[in-house]
Amino acid sequence: MSLDGFTAGPDQSLENPLGVGGMQLHDWLRVLAVWRREHGDGGGETNASTAVIEEADRNVGAIIMGRNMFGGGSGPWGTEPWNGWWGDDPPFHRPVFVLTHHPREPLEMLGGTTFTFVTDGIHSALAQAQAAAGGADIAISGGAGVARQYLAAGQLDEILIHLVPVLLGDGARLLGGPELAAVRLEQLQAVEAPGVTHLKYRVVRG
Amino acid sequence: MSLDGFTAGPDQSLENPLGVGGMQLHDWLRVLAVWRREHGDGGGETNASTAVIEEADRNVGAIIMGRNMFGGGSGPWGTEPWNGWWGDDPPFHRPVFVLTHHPREPLEMLGGTTFTFVTDGIHSALAQAQAAAGGADIAISGGAGVARQYLAAGQLDEILIHLVPVLLGDGARLLGGPELAAVRLEQLQAVEAPGVTHLKYRVVRG
Repeated sequence: MSLDGFTAGPDQSLENPLGVGGMQLHDWLRVLAVWRREHGDGGGETNASTAVIEEADRNVGAIIMGRNMFGGGSGPWGTEPWNGWWGDDPPFHRPVFVLTHHPREPLEMLGGTTFTFVTDGIHSALAQAQAAAGGADIAISGGAGVARQYLAAGQLDEILIHLVPVLLGDGARLLGGPELAAVRLEQLQAVEAPGVTHLKYRVVRG
Repeated sequence: MSLDGFTAGPDQSLENPLGVGGMQLHDWLRVLAVWRREHGDGGGETNASTAVIEEADRNVGAIIMGRNMFGGGSGPWGTEPWNGWWGDDPPFHRPVFVLTHHPREPLEMLGGTTFTFVTDGIHSALAQAQAAAGGADIAISGGAGVARQYLAAGQLDEILIHLVPVLLGDGARLLGGPELAAVRLEQLQAVEAPGVTHLKYRVVRG
């Protein structure tokens, strides 16, 4: 998230999926060896972000994401739908449930990633993810709209925000709005790392 | 600042100067011994926030704030203007320059705090504060609108944000908006403390 609250910049498009300036939000991540390894690349560095990423990944059994994070666009899939931003061997290595309004057959990729397309809402996606995860955690990866829906519905236990010293001015806002004002949080951890601060919160129930 | 970006909640008024829920933003501060001492109270605790507050205060020679932070309201001062929220012995102990549209004679309080009312804009207030500070730093205390104006004008060297795990939903937004999107920041420090994370950034010039 940018310091002014956006997880993508303005004017998101198929050509510019993170919007104007949005790529900067991932600068801290793309230099990490742990991230490059997941993407099949060598090199990269190890710093205070490494342990945060490894710990966040450790017990995740399934992932939920929005249609835009899978592959962009809001229309139907078309007669020859493509397989998303992530290439033949996506970096997820787990069952992934994609929230969309457009039905599509499941998609099995290399490296253990499967995409299942869910058209009947966030509760259905969560139930399917839980069944697939076999007791492990579910990660809501994004985008902002999907995370907001789960938070407003009281379905999140923890929030992990990677806060980046960038001001985007406009774009996809993660928090804010009266529908989230009832959410109560407890700060669990703040980790200073190069170009980012990792903030972990527990969502307080009741 | 709340995690969703507000330095005061919605519906600010003379009765509720920090807006709905806004008092929570200061919970971490009001328990500190260093803060209670400045307000003439005993007791309180010392934790990781203490050093941050002491360091932020150390070299400040003058303070700039908006009319609402001084004493609320946007109308003229009236025939018997009151002396603000802060009592006879305000916790500033320095020259304070208050941005307002309504002229008023300077006000000398106990404990070294003087309020000077500036009606000709942020650059004038900064020049007056610099003259009073004799080479020491100037702190822009708030509110959000005043901080935004100085940031947009390229007049800030550093930003210190006390990020609180609260969602206010609406209110006085500190950052965001295209007029601040050109601002470039470098993360200097992140300090985890009970109920707050202190984030310090340098504003990158040029």
